[in-house]
Amino acid sequence: MPVAHAAKAEARPRKGVRTRESILRAAVDLASVEGLEGLTIGRLADELKMSKSGLFAHFGSKEELQLATIEMARQIFVEHIIRPALAEPEGIQRLVNLCQAWMGHIELKIFKGGCFFTAASFEFDSRSGPVRDAIADAMKAWMSILTRAIEVAKKARHLKASIKAEQFAFEIYSLAMGANWALQLLDDKTAIQKARENIIQRIRAATTPSCPPIRVAK
Amino acid sequence: MPVAHAAKAEARPRKGVRTRESILRAAVDLASVEGLEGLTIGRLADELKMSKSGLFAHFGSKEELQLATIEMARQIFVEHIIRPALAEPEGIQRLVNLCQAWMGHIELKIFKGGCFFTAASFEFDSRSGPVRDAIADAMKAWMSILTRAIEVAKKARHLKASIKAEQFAFEIYSLAMGANWALQLLDDKTAIQKARENIIQRIRAATTPSCPPIRVAK
Repeated sequence: MPVAHAAKAEARPRKGVRTRESILRAAVDLASVEGLEGLTIGRLADELKMSKSGLFAHFGSKEELQLATIEMARQIFVEHIIRPALAEPEGIQRLVNLCQAWMGHIELKIFKGGCFFTAASFEFDSRSGPVRDAIADAMKAWMSILTRAIEVAKKARHLKASIKAEQFAFEIYSLAMGANWALQLLDDKTAIQKARENIIQRIRAATTPSCPPIRVAK
Repeated sequence: MPVAHAAKAEARPRKGVRTRESILRAAVDLASVEGLEGLTIGRLADELKMSKSGLFAHFGSKEELQLATIEMARQIFVEHIIRPALAEPEGIQRLVNLCQAWMGHIELKIFKGGCFFTAASFEFDSRSGPVRDAIADAMKAWMSILTRAIEVAKKARHLKASIKAEQFAFEIYSLAMGANWALQLLDDKTAIQKARENIIQRIRAATTPSCPPIRVAK
């Protein structure tokens, strides 16, 4: 059972009444399957068996609903991927933990239809407007976190000085995106494990002799 | 000017009359921007300033139009990426040419809204049915061509025997997908060149001492 679903169930105070948060968690799942453009007030009302007017009390327009859904997806990502990795001190292991938690969220389908942000990226990348900008901002924020984790690991002399942080973050990012694609479209169950190995192998190849041992989950 | 547009102009015999091919080339561009799901007979008729009944003469349903559009996108991909690379004898250089032509099609925006197939993959990966299957088939076919090119380069002893062809194809694939994403969503104009360098660097690192010199365009 995807973690987001469990959280959703807890957040539902009593039958028929839904909080803004539980509505948005359902919206994130729906958008990850059907796309953000298909996320209309009417479609979400059907899905939640709520009235459209009940939803309009929370969100005045489709765009407002889309933006709030992106913000909720960001929170879910922070909660499941970024926050747990921050428990680890800065350096190589934090970078590894970030990557592992990230691959884990694809594998566990924390977003019902695969990575919410990758799907939203490709859906909106040829459009313009606040929804596209919000998606791009979320992606840039995540790329910055990865890039910073690499830079810190370089400063700690865990990673070689010759590693270009931004380029390396992009490479890791691409491998994760490819794995999400292969799992979702080709139903290749081995894709996540392959990408996990690939990423760890790329990180290991970039370490210095003084780098502490890397702990790999599983 | 994207090559597909030039071809489209040539294929238009006279004002007001459009061949099935020119209709489908416009459909590919439209779907690469707005998504395959948004590709309805009505939307395409508006775009082409044709009557809906004129389009219904070619395609009986939205699904038929979507499937024919995927087939046209495949043909464009073969024409611009695969066929030119086959002019090169089998071995390392053919693999390099395939990758270079592929990055070139993203850079030149042969599909108006970025890679048609990547966008379609993420749009349909949580659905089922003939459209999803056609997209998955096209992607598998391209992965097989890449994998085969790697295997042949291994047999020719241009690439190390230790290289796992499928895994290596997946890695190259992921880097190209990441570049398409960064160009389209983040408007990162350097993404294609970075991915091109990354891919060539990964291929060089996998070559044997007896591999002939690699010719890199640009």
